[in-house]
Amino acid sequence: MKFVIDMMGGDNGIKATIGATKEFINRHKDVEVFLVGDLNALKELKNEKNVHLVESKTVLRMDVDPLTALKEKDSSLMVAINTYLQNGCDALISAGSTGALLSAAIFKIKRIEGITRPCLITSFPTIKKNKKFVVCDLGANNSNTKEELVQFAIMGSIYYSILYQKKDPEVYLLSNGTEEEKGSPLGKEAYPLLKECKSINFKGNIEARDPLFGEIDVLVTDGYSGNIYLKSVEGTAKAMSGMIKEAFKRNIFAMIGYLFSKKGIVEMKEKMDYKNVGGALLMGVNGVVIKAHGSSDVKSFLSALENGYKLVSVDIVNKFKEELAK
Amino acid sequence: MKFVIDMMGGDNGIKATIGATKEFINRHKDVEVFLVGDLNALKELKNEKNVHLVESKTVLRMDVDPLTALKEKDSSLMVAINTYLQNGCDALISAGSTGALLSAAIFKIKRIEGITRPCLITSFPTIKKNKKFVVCDLGANNSNTKEELVQFAIMGSIYYSILYQKKDPEVYLLSNGTEEEKGSPLGKEAYPLLKECKSINFKGNIEARDPLFGEIDVLVTDGYSGNIYLKSVEGTAKAMSGMIKEAFKRNIFAMIGYLFSKKGIVEMKEKMDYKNVGGALLMGVNGVVIKAHGSSDVKSFLSALENGYKLVSVDIVNKFKEELAK
Repeated sequence: MKFVIDMMGGDNGIKATIGATKEFINRHKDVEVFLVGDLNALKELKNEKNVHLVESKTVLRMDVDPLTALKEKDSSLMVAINTYLQNGCDALISAGSTGALLSAAIFKIKRIEGITRPCLITSFPTIKKNKKFVVCDLGANNSNTKEELVQFAIMGSIYYSILYQKKDPEVYLLSNGTEEEKGSPLGKEAYPLLKECKSINFKGNIEARDPLFGEIDVLVTDGYSGNIYLKSVEGTAKAMSGMIKEAFKRNIFAMIGYLFSKKGIVEMKEKMDYKNVGGALLMGVNGVVIKAHGSSDVKSFLSALENGYKLVSVDIVNKFKEELAK
Repeated sequence: MKFVIDMMGGDNGIKATIGATKEFINRHKDVEVFLVGDLNALKELKNEKNVHLVESKTVLRMDVDPLTALKEKDSSLMVAINTYLQNGCDALISAGSTGALLSAAIFKIKRIEGITRPCLITSFPTIKKNKKFVVCDLGANNSNTKEELVQFAIMGSIYYSILYQKKDPEVYLLSNGTEEEKGSPLGKEAYPLLKECKSINFKGNIEARDPLFGEIDVLVTDGYSGNIYLKSVEGTAKAMSGMIKEAFKRNIFAMIGYLFSKKGIVEMKEKMDYKNVGGALLMGVNGVVIKAHGSSDVKSFLSALENGYKLVSVDIVNKFKEELAK
């Protein structure tokens, strides 16, 4: 297995990516990694087994526009993309700008035939043990057409069935009400197409408060609303985890209480910590391209690498093509 | 103070509204209430002081279309609106269909001059003690224009300054990134107008993960995204509260831990329980019209009544008109 890692993207710089990469190569001796970045900053990894260092001179800004990104050939992202192609790699991971990653991946790695717009997809935890659901698009796009929503539904459905071995996963459309006639103007247009689409098991609209309760498999949404959904859930979980911490610190009794109940509370916080979700797959491009969280720390970048490992292991891209061909 | 209460709207029927109303009239002897609904179901309230029962024969469905709603003159909502007008009331509260309430209020109670689209607005808790922020629109609309977003920003700003006595509250636009060029197509159009608008203190874009941390005063969004935001936060808070409960039940040690830390945990859960947010004001119509949560129980319907009481007490409608006139 060959991975290319953009070591420079992301708000927290190279410390997070180096820490995560060390742990990752330590866990997975079967992976050859190409680390793209400032060679001086990466030198501590130079003598590791299975590691190749590849030099890049610049780093794209998080707010770079896609066209400028494509032209900046010395940037860590563009060097990473070229390294990926030249070495026949299996996965590329970056915590850099979503827009730049999207346009570079589409332009250089290309889309899978039949897919007009790739989407970002990842798994969310639910209150039920071992039950997850996937959301697409999480923000690869900021406006979509009804046909694109149908493609997202198909991609989400295939992704879920490959990853969780469930036939005909239940697909829902994010909406402001459960009734068929509810939804944004776009959602209302997409609804009849989703209903007619024979490749998916479409179950109707769902409101944003419900998916975390574990009854659905795939949540389809345009990229803008998906991004609002993702970040609302993430922010609320983080805020509540902080409040739990404060609640346990308020007096000596509460602190004693924490000692007794620690294990369950820590497990719950871990489950809802979006640092652990593992980045999102840019589904629809012809390879495993993972967008890690922009503010990745060691833990979240490591979980993005692990997500990549899992997706390559299940051969997601070829399986996806086979399913599409049907 | 005179209140009209639609006793029949809402998913949980009359039990919730009766329980809440009893507690409300018990707390506020200065309020005269007109209770609209099935007289037989309401008979236990017949002899209460300051209570008038008003008969309605039907209940609008939650998914009723606005035009049908206006024609159904015997429905609890339409009778409530007429009662409101005939008795010169100060507030109207309903847990019924948002669309029906919106169109009936606009059609009968009318908009305040200068406002083209009313919005739903309410206060959200934050991790900071006593610090709240307001969100508008929460879903009165499912698509908006850039000019409407500017109106929402002005309404949110005035609402916040009246309710929390803060001059020039800080207004942010909900977006998928903090940079000026981020946003939905609508958000991008609205941004320059918000920036130029002299009646508000516009601070730029904000991502959905940040408002709960207590740094902003007003969150402006189109009604569809606002609804996604509201329900995502609500659902996540509910899911995590459930998980905390489970964490404390996992063994005898955790249960002991709960006994020690109970007070802080309960306070935190109460704070984040969206049953307590008090419904949303339909701002921009010429009266205090409150949309209570569709699945209101006693507690949430009571908090909607209390919200109405507070808004009438601060004379929100007249103050709003004065501010608009400036």
